[in-house]
Amino acid sequence: MKVYHINEVSAMDSNFRRNFINSLTGFKSVGLIGTVSEAGRTNLAIFSQIFHVGASPALIGVLFRPNTVTRHTLDNILSTRSFTINHICESFVTAAHQSSARYADDESEFDATGLTAEFTSAVNAPYVKESVIKLGLRLAEHQTIRINQTELVIGEVKEIIVPDDCVLNDGFVDLEKAGTVTSSGLDSYHKTSKIVRLTYAKPHQTPRPIG
Amino acid sequence: MKVYHINEVSAMDSNFRRNFINSLTGFKSVGLIGTVSEAGRTNLAIFSQIFHVGASPALIGVLFRPNTVTRHTLDNILSTRSFTINHICESFVTAAHQSSARYADDESEFDATGLTAEFTSAVNAPYVKESVIKLGLRLAEHQTIRINQTELVIGEVKEIIVPDDCVLNDGFVDLEKAGTVTSSGLDSYHKTSKIVRLTYAKPHQTPRPIG
Repeated sequence: MKVYHINEVSAMDSNFRRNFINSLTGFKSVGLIGTVSEAGRTNLAIFSQIFHVGASPALIGVLFRPNTVTRHTLDNILSTRSFTINHICESFVTAAHQSSARYADDESEFDATGLTAEFTSAVNAPYVKESVIKLGLRLAEHQTIRINQTELVIGEVKEIIVPDDCVLNDGFVDLEKAGTVTSSGLDSYHKTSKIVRLTYAKPHQTPRPIG
Repeated sequence: MKVYHINEVSAMDSNFRRNFINSLTGFKSVGLIGTVSEAGRTNLAIFSQIFHVGASPALIGVLFRPNTVTRHTLDNILSTRSFTINHICESFVTAAHQSSARYADDESEFDATGLTAEFTSAVNAPYVKESVIKLGLRLAEHQTIRINQTELVIGEVKEIIVPDDCVLNDGFVDLEKAGTVTSSGLDSYHKTSKIVRLTYAKPHQTPRPIG
């Protein structure tokens, strides 16, 4: 077991530190965010800082680091107030990862990666046709994290596209059945296998497996 | 494939909706947060709204829903300005889940779940001895999400405890080797198997597998 103190972390090579620190939160919710510019150009970018904010209303948060390639996505969300989140499956992990390349302003990541844009009437942003679980969102709030100027975008879910047989009777969505992958660090992708679902925890009772 | 619109989601039974919406972000970073009260009582609670905020300085964010059992954790962080995040392994998933039960104010979740508190000199909060990867943090920022009064806490990483053989030459931490689990929805736990690590994406080049 090794113990790192903050002064050792500060002294690390910056690439080493980026890989190291990005690994520490654990496995992440990774998805492709689809947007469209005011001029109508589609954009697609991979994000792993996606998290649940609330169920009623249904809110999802995304963090944007300042001054990165993902800036197109943020600009588009702020102008159209719309975006999609598309779960990633093993079959298109490489294309999804490729969407993080720094393409020129006049290139769409859909063309560049071979993924297919599709639209519904509910949201002014492209979905990824190849994705199995997809969410359409409307911008609900935008704040800046003061300590490092990271931008927090919160979207309200307007539309949810999910296979019928992945939604269980109690509302739980079987992501494993849908083939959703998870990520770790900056560049690693993983599939999952279920250990257990557990009943709601109450004091002095051991939770029981569900299903 | 089923398409849900927001008005159907709003009309859902509240338990169904909670399970459903909590599933939609994908697999999550789940960890045990250890804190201590001003009176010296240890507290432990499971969280799945944990995310990377920045690498330099090393910052991690945690969301706290208002008016829940997790309030003890937030109160302790605000008073001691310290907390730990402890990765969960398959061997103690049930104990970790059990930490979410609504224990009385004079009970410690360490005693109730059988997990073991341990301390270092770097941070005024208990680690979970059984955990393999553990982070000690100091409160760096605290904001309220206006739209639903969720509280965002950002901690600066002060200490990192991780097995030597899980840190690769480029800084990437092999969470799978450490046995870190991921969660989905409110109550499901999963182990992972690696699909691939991919090289940094550049326009018009296909990313290659690493390692």
